[in-house]
Amino acid sequence: MKYGYFSDDAKEYCITRPDTPASWVNYLGTEQYCAIVSNNAAGYAFHRSPKTGRLLRFRFNSVPTDRPGRYFYLRDADDGDYWSVTWQPVAKPFIDSSDPSLGFSGPLDEGKNSKASYTCRHRPGVSVFEARYRNIFAEVTAFVPKGEAAEVWSLKLENRGSTARRLDLFGYVEWCFWHIQQDSMNFQYILYTCRMDQEDGIIDYSLRLWPLEEPKGFFASTGEIKSFDTDRDVFLGNYRHEGIPQAVENGSCANSRAIGGTPCGALQTSVELAPGEVKTISFICGVGDAKTVGVELRDRFSNPEAVQTAIADIDHDWNERLSAFSMHTPDPALNSMGNIWNQVQCHTTFNWSRSASFNEAGGRDGVGYRDTCQDALGVLHSVPERVREKIIWLLRAQYASGAAMHHFQPLEFHQGAHNHQALDFSDDHLWLLVTVPAYIRETGDFAILSETVSYADAGSASVWEHLLQAVEYS
Amino acid sequence: MKYGYFSDDAKEYCITRPDTPASWVNYLGTEQYCAIVSNNAAGYAFHRSPKTGRLLRFRFNSVPTDRPGRYFYLRDADDGDYWSVTWQPVAKPFIDSSDPSLGFSGPLDEGKNSKASYTCRHRPGVSVFEARYRNIFAEVTAFVPKGEAAEVWSLKLENRGSTARRLDLFGYVEWCFWHIQQDSMNFQYILYTCRMDQEDGIIDYSLRLWPLEEPKGFFASTGEIKSFDTDRDVFLGNYRHEGIPQAVENGSCANSRAIGGTPCGALQTSVELAPGEVKTISFICGVGDAKTVGVELRDRFSNPEAVQTAIADIDHDWNERLSAFSMHTPDPALNSMGNIWNQVQCHTTFNWSRSASFNEAGGRDGVGYRDTCQDALGVLHSVPERVREKIIWLLRAQYASGAAMHHFQPLEFHQGAHNHQALDFSDDHLWLLVTVPAYIRETGDFAILSETVSYADAGSASVWEHLLQAVEYS
Repeated sequence: MKYGYFSDDAKEYCITRPDTPASWVNYLGTEQYCAIVSNNAAGYAFHRSPKTGRLLRFRFNSVPTDRPGRYFYLRDADDGDYWSVTWQPVAKPFIDSSDPSLGFSGPLDEGKNSKASYTCRHRPGVSVFEARYRNIFAEVTAFVPKGEAAEVWSLKLENRGSTARRLDLFGYVEWCFWHIQQDSMNFQYILYTCRMDQEDGIIDYSLRLWPLEEPKGFFASTGEIKSFDTDRDVFLGNYRHEGIPQAVENGSCANSRAIGGTPCGALQTSVELAPGEVKTISFICGVGDAKTVGVELRDRFSNPEAVQTAIADIDHDWNERLSAFSMHTPDPALNSMGNIWNQVQCHTTFNWSRSASFNEAGGRDGVGYRDTCQDALGVLHSVPERVREKIIWLLRAQYASGAAMHHFQPLEFHQGAHNHQALDFSDDHLWLLVTVPAYIRETGDFAILSETVSYADAGSASVWEHLLQAVEYS
Repeated sequence: MKYGYFSDDAKEYCITRPDTPASWVNYLGTEQYCAIVSNNAAGYAFHRSPKTGRLLRFRFNSVPTDRPGRYFYLRDADDGDYWSVTWQPVAKPFIDSSDPSLGFSGPLDEGKNSKASYTCRHRPGVSVFEARYRNIFAEVTAFVPKGEAAEVWSLKLENRGSTARRLDLFGYVEWCFWHIQQDSMNFQYILYTCRMDQEDGIIDYSLRLWPLEEPKGFFASTGEIKSFDTDRDVFLGNYRHEGIPQAVENGSCANSRAIGGTPCGALQTSVELAPGEVKTISFICGVGDAKTVGVELRDRFSNPEAVQTAIADIDHDWNERLSAFSMHTPDPALNSMGNIWNQVQCHTTFNWSRSASFNEAGGRDGVGYRDTCQDALGVLHSVPERVREKIIWLLRAQYASGAAMHHFQPLEFHQGAHNHQALDFSDDHLWLLVTVPAYIRETGDFAILSETVSYADAGSASVWEHLLQAVEYS
C-alpha cells in the first residue's frame, strides 16, 4: 500500500491516502510553543514544558486511534451533509488524492454519497491539509507564528462548482488540564476546575484552584461567530464522538459555558460561496489572555497577508537551517534523508528533547543530560549560536563536584523526581567533553572557554574549569 | 426524562433506556476481585488493589464516554447485521424497554432497520443486561463467583421468532497493564510488554519485563471457539472503535497473537437457534493461569446449574447482609434507600475504600485511615466479624507513638507516596476511638480490647493500649 511520497523540491512529505497505519506526525513551532500534529490533524500542544504546560489534550493509546485534534467541520447548510477538512474524524469514504481520475468534474463530486479525497503535506514547521468533496475545495495551513505562543489554522475555501453554496464552518479544539499527570489520572480534580467564557467571539479558557500562576488559553476565529460551545459534552453530545458531533449535526452550537466538566473550544461561522469564489478564515489557539493576546492575534491574522508573511518567515528560517549542509549522491532516498528529514529530526530533538511524541506522553520530569548533549551535536552546523546557549544551559546543570544532573526540568534546575543528586550517573558530565570541543571545532569560538557559568549547587567557574571538573569527577 | 425505576422486591434498579446522562455503575465482587460495571457493561476490573492489580482497562474521561467494557456482539450470519447485548457500543436505535407496545410481534422486530430495546438491572453483586432485537432475546448476567478472582458473563439466547437463526457471538475484553499509573502514562513501556497466547479456546494474557511477580489473566468461553483475536487493533481495525469492530463486520476474528501492542481478548462462537430454542453460553475473565485456573472455571461454568448456584450464593450473601437492618416508613423512596441502596453503598466503600470509581482512577497510593475507620461504622450491624478484622488491620497501621498512617497500601503497611511519617494528621488515630467503641457496643465483644496487635514500626500492645496511645499522642 502506498500512502504518499517525498517531494524534495517542496521539502515536504505528501500523504495521499489518509488511513496511514499509524499517525504520521509533524512538529510545529521551534521556540516556546510546540504543536504536534498528525496527518489527520490530531495531537496536542504545549507551552515550554510538555509536562506542566499542556494546552491541548491528546488521548494516547485511544480508541478510536489518533484523537482528538484541531478539527474543522464543513456542513452544507442546505442539506445538512457534513465532513471534516481532514479525513478523521468524520471519515468520509475517500479515494487516493493522487488518483489521476480525481478532479472536480464527473461523478466524483455530485451528491451526498460521493467520495472525498484528502491530502496532507508535512513540511518543516508547516502542515497543509486539503479536502475535496462535492465541489468544495478546502485547504487548511497550520503553523506556529514566530515569537508567539499560539498556533494558527488558516482555511481557504473555494467553490469549484457551478452553483452558489451556503456552508457552516465549525472549528474545534479540546483543552487539556495544564499538568499532564493530573490530566491523565486525577479526574476528581480536573473535572472540577475549568472556567470557560466567551466574549467578542473569542473563547477564554482558565482554571480555578490552580495552586501556582493561573494559566490561560484562548480560541479565536477571524470569521463572524454565529454560535459557540465551551463544553465538550454539549458540542459532541453524550455517547457520541468527534466523528458525529451533535452541534455539527444540528447545524449550530448551543452557546454552552462550562464551569467544571470537560472544556472545549468550538466556534461556528458561516460561509457563502458563489461559483468560483474563494474565502479565507483563520482559527487561532494559544496561551494567554483572550482579551489581549487573543484579540491581538485574531486581528492580526484577519489580514490574509499577515498569514502569508508568517508562513514565509517560517519557511525562510527552515531554509536557512537546512542550507548549511547538503549532500548529492546517486541515491535520491539518501539525499532526501540527509538534506531534509534527518536534519529536521535533529532540530526537533534539539528543540523539544525526546520527552514528547505520540508514544511518549511527555510526563517525565524533564530533560536528559546525555540526550541533550548529543542532540546539540546534530544541529551544530546549522544553529551554532543556539547550541552555544544550550551548552551554557547544560553547564548550569552541572554540580561543583563535576557531576551533572541526570535529568532536569527545562524551566528550573531542580533535579527530576526519579533521580537524586546521590545517584550520579557515570557518564552524564562526560558528554560535555564531546559537545563543547565539537562546538569549538565548528565555530572557532575559543572565547566560550573563558566564560563564567554558575554551578547548579554553589559557586561558578569558567567553561574550561567546568570541563576539567567533569574529568576530575570521573 | 425517565431512565428507570427502583424495584425493591427484586432489590434492583432497572434501567429501561440505556442513554443515561452518566454511567450508572454497579460493583461486583466483595472479596479479592472487583468488577466495576456500568449500565452499558463498560468499566474495569482489579484484583486486590485498584492501583497495582488492574486487569481490565477503562478509559476515564474518554470520547466516546463509557468505554471500553465487556462487550458481547451478536451477528446474524445470514445478513451480517450485528448488535451488542448492551446498547453501547454498537448503539442501535432503541425504544424504551418499559414501553407497553414492546414485544416480539409487530413491526418492531422485523428487518435490519427495526429498533432494539435494552434493559439493565443492577442488584447487589449482580448485573443483568437484556437486548431484544429482531426476535432474538439476549440476556447476560454478570457476577464475580464467591472465592474466585474472576468475573462470569453468562448469556442466554432465545429465538422468539418463527424461523431458524444462525448467529455469530463475539465476546470482547481489553486488558490493562497491571499498574494503572504506568497504563495511563508510560506508553513507551506498556506498548511493548504484553505476550498473548491462545490454547484450547482460552486466551492467556501475560507481561514480559515485569519486575515483580508476573501477573496473568485469561479469557474463556464455554462455547466452541471458531476464531479469536488477542490484538485489539486487529479486532477493532485501524481508526475504528468498539461500535464498529472490523472482526464483527467480517464475521470472523483473525486469530491474531499480540506480542507487544494493545492486547485484547476476543472469542467467536456460533449459535444456531431453532424457533423457540434457548441456549446458554458463558464467558469468564479472570486472574490466574489460563491452563489451570482458566480451564477449571471454564469447565465448571459450562454447566448452567453451576452458574445458577454461584448467583444464588451471591444473592444469599447479600440478603444476609441486608437483613440485619430494615426500616418501614410512609415514604417508599426513603425505605428503598435505607433498606437497600445506602447499605449497599456502605458495603462497597467498606470493601473497596473510595479509591476506585468512574471518576477516581484508583491510582492513589492506598487507603485513607480516617475514611476506613468511618466506612467500618456503616456496616457494623451487618458484618461485625469483618469489621473486627478491619479494626485489627487499622491498628497495625498505627505507630508506637500513637499516630496513624494517614494513607496506606492495603497490601502492605508502607505509607503512601504523598504522605510521610513526619506528616501526621491530627485526627487519623482519633477515629479509632469512635470505631472500636462502636464495635463493642454493637457486639459486646470486650475481648477485643485484650488482643495483642503489632504497631506499624516497632513493638506491639493490646488494643486497649493502642487506644490509650492514640489519646496520649494527641
